[in-house]
Amino acid sequence: MTATAKADIGVVGLAVMGENLILNMESKGFTVSCYNRTVEKVDRFMDGRASGKNIIGARSVEEFVQTLKRPRKVMIMVKAGAPVDKFIEQVLPLLEEGDIIIDGGNSHFPDTIRRTEYVESKGLLYIGTGVSGGEEGALKGPSIMPGGSPAAWEHVKPIFQKISAHTESGEPCCDWVGENGAGHFVKMVHNGIEYGDMQMICETYQMMKEGLGMSNDEMHKVFAEWNEGELDSYLIEITRDILGYKDEDGNYVLDQILDTAGQKGTGKWTAIAALDVGQPLTLIGEAVFARCLSAIKDERVAASKVLSGPDAKFDGDKMQMIEDLKLALYASKIVSYAQGYQLMRAAAAEYGWNLNYGGIALMWRGGCIIRSVFLGKIKEAFDNNPELTNLLLDPFFKGAVENAQAAWRRVVSKAVEMGVPTPAISTALAFYDGYRHDRLPANLLQAQRDYFGAHTYERVDKPRGEFFHTNWTGRGGDTAASTYNV
Amino acid sequence: MTATAKADIGVVGLAVMGENLILNMESKGFTVSCYNRTVEKVDRFMDGRASGKNIIGARSVEEFVQTLKRPRKVMIMVKAGAPVDKFIEQVLPLLEEGDIIIDGGNSHFPDTIRRTEYVESKGLLYIGTGVSGGEEGALKGPSIMPGGSPAAWEHVKPIFQKISAHTESGEPCCDWVGENGAGHFVKMVHNGIEYGDMQMICETYQMMKEGLGMSNDEMHKVFAEWNEGELDSYLIEITRDILGYKDEDGNYVLDQILDTAGQKGTGKWTAIAALDVGQPLTLIGEAVFARCLSAIKDERVAASKVLSGPDAKFDGDKMQMIEDLKLALYASKIVSYAQGYQLMRAAAAEYGWNLNYGGIALMWRGGCIIRSVFLGKIKEAFDNNPELTNLLLDPFFKGAVENAQAAWRRVVSKAVEMGVPTPAISTALAFYDGYRHDRLPANLLQAQRDYFGAHTYERVDKPRGEFFHTNWTGRGGDTAASTYNV
Repeated sequence: MTATAKADIGVVGLAVMGENLILNMESKGFTVSCYNRTVEKVDRFMDGRASGKNIIGARSVEEFVQTLKRPRKVMIMVKAGAPVDKFIEQVLPLLEEGDIIIDGGNSHFPDTIRRTEYVESKGLLYIGTGVSGGEEGALKGPSIMPGGSPAAWEHVKPIFQKISAHTESGEPCCDWVGENGAGHFVKMVHNGIEYGDMQMICETYQMMKEGLGMSNDEMHKVFAEWNEGELDSYLIEITRDILGYKDEDGNYVLDQILDTAGQKGTGKWTAIAALDVGQPLTLIGEAVFARCLSAIKDERVAASKVLSGPDAKFDGDKMQMIEDLKLALYASKIVSYAQGYQLMRAAAAEYGWNLNYGGIALMWRGGCIIRSVFLGKIKEAFDNNPELTNLLLDPFFKGAVENAQAAWRRVVSKAVEMGVPTPAISTALAFYDGYRHDRLPANLLQAQRDYFGAHTYERVDKPRGEFFHTNWTGRGGDTAASTYNV
Repeated sequence: MTATAKADIGVVGLAVMGENLILNMESKGFTVSCYNRTVEKVDRFMDGRASGKNIIGARSVEEFVQTLKRPRKVMIMVKAGAPVDKFIEQVLPLLEEGDIIIDGGNSHFPDTIRRTEYVESKGLLYIGTGVSGGEEGALKGPSIMPGGSPAAWEHVKPIFQKISAHTESGEPCCDWVGENGAGHFVKMVHNGIEYGDMQMICETYQMMKEGLGMSNDEMHKVFAEWNEGELDSYLIEITRDILGYKDEDGNYVLDQILDTAGQKGTGKWTAIAALDVGQPLTLIGEAVFARCLSAIKDERVAASKVLSGPDAKFDGDKMQMIEDLKLALYASKIVSYAQGYQLMRAAAAEYGWNLNYGGIALMWRGGCIIRSVFLGKIKEAFDNNPELTNLLLDPFFKGAVENAQAAWRRVVSKAVEMGVPTPAISTALAFYDGYRHDRLPANLLQAQRDYFGAHTYERVDKPRGEFFHTNWTGRGGDTAASTYNV
């Protein structure tokens, strides 16, 4: 190893995402330097997958930094949280003005806001970028969602747009998202939507399996067919594959997998972000909670022996119900993405980001876990109307939901009748019905709050912002509840 | 005004809750001192509602402190957040060892954990207490949920248990909850449950009004009847009253109230706390999001002109549906409280509190917004089995839900068919169905995560804690996803 700076970019952290990103970059013609805290990993990687490639293995941070061309691009691919801060502290003194630190992990966007400010205060540039696509995406072309210091973009753009996925028409699934935490925010929403997509597919699977008594092979064929139409997407494709996958003994692996999922990540953050900005992301909320419920397996096993369900068996037209499930899944998915976009719109206002909504759909169009034909339609919707308030109001999606509506209602009714839990698909429908109601029953809720807490209310026949109080009982005082908020 | 210390307790903050608490304390034989930052409020109160009573009005913090018997009890009734910290800083130097600062506002429990530690470090004692019951409860007997420094309890117990509500059998709706933030946590869960109760009542109202076309007067009568049975509760009672309340011109006030509710408070905190400890509080989550959806009124009005609903009209037996609604409301309520208790159980483990679950039901039995006959049944359930894992498993509640089950499913089906949004009642049913499933479809979800991210999974035929990875595509590497968590 010489100290000559010849690497176009350096990557720190040799777990699955880091390794695959490096191999991806190298395969696109870039020279990549790498470093890992446990140095044996560097050796193993250099002797293994990196062998014979334009990859430089550094055995210390100092050596690593010396291998990088200026402005240096240091991409951190370590566990989100303290390890990122720790590495930033370690590498900062070794870098020079204009060098760029890039965090490619799943960092929480407030951390990225903080780190951008901190690194900029040291005269350097910072990027926090979402990278989605899992193991294979990282290797062959992920979706990349960078935000941070705008001045850094021109330096990383040639690399990121080359290694990212591309749509069929050749557009890179990577573009500048916005300042400071915008990239990680959009990646977080991507992951929240991914939680929703996965949960909806699971509910569909449960309805087919438990409700319709379908075999893995039958379901495999249905998902294969669905993947040829409007539901064409990576998650439907892998569901198809999973339903068809057998081990050496000829048993379906799927049937051997324990039904408990974790949720300590970005799905939870998305739900909290939605609560913070006051946007009703009911579908993602239910998806996260469904994982929580899956996790208390022992309790469920005990409860299943005590609590009874309905006796109802499916006695309808099975092929019709499968078609209904497809439409219900599609309509629910539209609601989920509509909600995700509502959140991004509210967050952009809150954090001062100028988000390009069509561009975000394009970034998600390929490479990432939620990639789908569907996202092309979202891109079109925002191309047609960049000021679109809600996806449900776009003519294409409005038509799609209305076309699916009757089937969607049949699915939820049937699930309720048979006792098959479909919380995400159900809440999507409740949202659709709530969103299209000019009047919801919150007038009663406001009356209750005014009754017990003198919280006041607005009136339908008066301008917004005027507040009224009724002395409902004739007993309360006239003191307003300025300090007591329910 | 003399400087002689003769007040049993002092209250800071003369908004509706503070004033009413003072009058309550005084009416029970205590001498109360009061202070307010805007001193005119003190004068107005002393000349008004406090006139001729054993109430001392202080015009400075120093004067206020001097009026208090030792150990001094200073109860803060100001807006939660910075004003509480500010007043603590202001009063601390004037107090002495063993004096007690009490925060009776809706503080967020992590703040109370922090403040307890801080005030104790100064040699004083701290209590953070939930006070529920609104305007009238504060005056006549609220539910009081104190936590903080255990040594403070004996000093405030005689006052708090005397001014609190009491059950018919004479038990005070106030007892020690636990250390540091436990009192405010339990109050937060109370408020989250209150969000849920209110939302469920609103959905029932919407089904009656929109689905069954009932008049306010008809609904008034139904709620009056419901309040005589198992749903007997404060919120049903005030709903009855609200549905019957007309203004001077003979118009129902309810119909004049704008259908937009805020949610910037404790409901949101409860949902976030649930996400943090990984408990599926779906009903409270939906209730909070329903408020968010109500708040975007302009969007809904616009959407209502674009998006269509179903044509279905109610053509069943109206009296049967009203009975079904009662049972659906009752069953959903059981789920909501079961979820609330799940959260408290998880939080107790997380924060090291030794909560008395039956005692909490007793505290909520009277005085507070969610007071109900129902809570007596919860108290009984925990008396019968203090180790009860979930309310749904208690024989009484299991029986009640099973009795309601068919009606509950009819209500949700009918709402879905007619396009009336019932997100909370629907999610309660989905939770019931999920909780009683020993197998949920999360096996597919885990397969997906392992497929795209090498996240590994557990197996049904292997002990928990052993993780497996399948190379689903035959293309991925064997590197585990140690740093990349979706």
